[in-house]
Amino acid sequence: MKQKIVCMLRLTEAEKEEFRKAAGENEIIFTKDSGIGYKNIIPLDEELVKDADVLMGYIDPGLVPKAKQLKWLQAQSSGVDNYLAPGVLKEGTILTSATGAYGMAVAEHMFGMMLAIMKNMHIYRDLQAEHKWDDVGPVLSPKGMDILIMGTGDLGSQFALYCKAFGAHTIGVRQDPSKAAPGIDEMHGMDELDELIKKVDVVCSLLPHIDSMVRYFDYDRLMSMKKEAIFLNGGRGSICNNEDLARVLSEGHLWGAGIDTTESEPMPADHVLWSEKKAFITPHVAGGDHLDDTLRKVAAIGLSNLKAYLAGEPLRNRKA
Amino acid sequence: MKQKIVCMLRLTEAEKEEFRKAAGENEIIFTKDSGIGYKNIIPLDEELVKDADVLMGYIDPGLVPKAKQLKWLQAQSSGVDNYLAPGVLKEGTILTSATGAYGMAVAEHMFGMMLAIMKNMHIYRDLQAEHKWDDVGPVLSPKGMDILIMGTGDLGSQFALYCKAFGAHTIGVRQDPSKAAPGIDEMHGMDELDELIKKVDVVCSLLPHIDSMVRYFDYDRLMSMKKEAIFLNGGRGSICNNEDLARVLSEGHLWGAGIDTTESEPMPADHVLWSEKKAFITPHVAGGDHLDDTLRKVAAIGLSNLKAYLAGEPLRNRKA
Repeated sequence: MKQKIVCMLRLTEAEKEEFRKAAGENEIIFTKDSGIGYKNIIPLDEELVKDADVLMGYIDPGLVPKAKQLKWLQAQSSGVDNYLAPGVLKEGTILTSATGAYGMAVAEHMFGMMLAIMKNMHIYRDLQAEHKWDDVGPVLSPKGMDILIMGTGDLGSQFALYCKAFGAHTIGVRQDPSKAAPGIDEMHGMDELDELIKKVDVVCSLLPHIDSMVRYFDYDRLMSMKKEAIFLNGGRGSICNNEDLARVLSEGHLWGAGIDTTESEPMPADHVLWSEKKAFITPHVAGGDHLDDTLRKVAAIGLSNLKAYLAGEPLRNRKA
Repeated sequence: MKQKIVCMLRLTEAEKEEFRKAAGENEIIFTKDSGIGYKNIIPLDEELVKDADVLMGYIDPGLVPKAKQLKWLQAQSSGVDNYLAPGVLKEGTILTSATGAYGMAVAEHMFGMMLAIMKNMHIYRDLQAEHKWDDVGPVLSPKGMDILIMGTGDLGSQFALYCKAFGAHTIGVRQDPSKAAPGIDEMHGMDELDELIKKVDVVCSLLPHIDSMVRYFDYDRLMSMKKEAIFLNGGRGSICNNEDLARVLSEGHLWGAGIDTTESEPMPADHVLWSEKKAFITPHVAGGDHLDDTLRKVAAIGLSNLKAYLAGEPLRNRKA
């Protein structure tokens, strides 16, 4: 039976042609191109969704239950918590993520943020606004540093490889420390985390949301880090209490913090962290659809899954 | 005959002990420690200088002629133009630089600046000041880019190696292109420069002051670069007309510019470049004495040269 595939992925014309070819006799509809960034997404028309067999892209979870015939959803994101929430997907609906497409983009962003903080570039940008040519003193280097990476999948491994290219020693944590990961020099169990954060020069969290880790980084844990350590969060914001982070920084502890994700997003305009000079904040843009390379990788995952789905073969990145 | 060595280098206690041992029967005087950055240098007392045989460190060129017995000057900097100017050094005085100590520091700074600009971090810092969580759109990646590096010595090679670790293709220019340099994938002659700058995604100048290159980067040459290219200057500021750079950026050409050096330093408070959002400016801090690693390398050069000098052997980094 002919299937109806609604595809919101941002594709090049050449990619669309390949998707059409893969779809064969089935109906494939490409929606209007959205701009870059979540806020620019053009919402899907409910009419288009209601008899769709397949949805691909940044699909609003609120719209998913309207797709009564939905058999497979290919998410554009790496995290798919929102689709796994009760009432979104019918039992038996296949869900696949775009895990693997974001590692390079997120790792580059977080590494750039780390290096910028080490070199006081956020502080120099503030001085630039005042037209001030002022030397603010010593800088740091990744060389010889111990860098702790929480989350040792695609993102963490890529970040670790960049750190190693600059001469750092990389330490990973995971449930089963006997499992190695590319770029990680030394792997430890999650049970050692409390001790590890006290010893390293940089802590970089790239973890997804984990219930048991909510606000793991609170005042006491951040204060237990070395005085000149750097805290980075490019994973989910829920792991860090950013009010505590602002307090720790204002008390002169830590060299700085690089924050791409916060507990509630957008971070409220009156949040204390905004004014903390030693915090460098970007608005959850490390991943998403900002980098062309990411979009091409998402397209490749989508295409290979579309072929597999129509051939009745197993799908990549299956989450349900 | 006993020599008098006046040493302004910023040394650790252990290093001072090694210098004392190397000095043997000669007199070695360590001056008070200056803070980090040129403006914090404690000037040398003229009394201390007038009968010195050896001066080591950031010595004010105006003070050098007062050292009537000076036989050797070990500079703390890589560039020694100021000491080679007429009237500074007597004929026959040995001059050595600290070339080789700054490559890592400058390359890290310029690479961090490049990555920050690619990821719009300077723009996000401005938004942070306004407490604004706004997505400014697409970003760039070094992966697959052609990066042109002007100056293929210690600084350029180190910068090139970082670029390659992020998947870029590196292009160098030098007088004799048959001479390779570590990290440079492709070497060209300086006569090809006008054509090369039109084709690459990043131009990074790490050149010292060269008379024939003054204001090489003017309006026309900057406009001849690709619309989304990035211009970086971590070499001497004289190579770029920064008023022209501001104009080019304000006209929407180039993705951005990272500027650590300017024609006159400090850059005047009313210079148009300060207000150009797409320019990211740091106040000549990439090198200098900001990084501990640099200070240790300078100390090592100074110590090895002190031993060679007292043994009558050839000195490293000899410039006169």
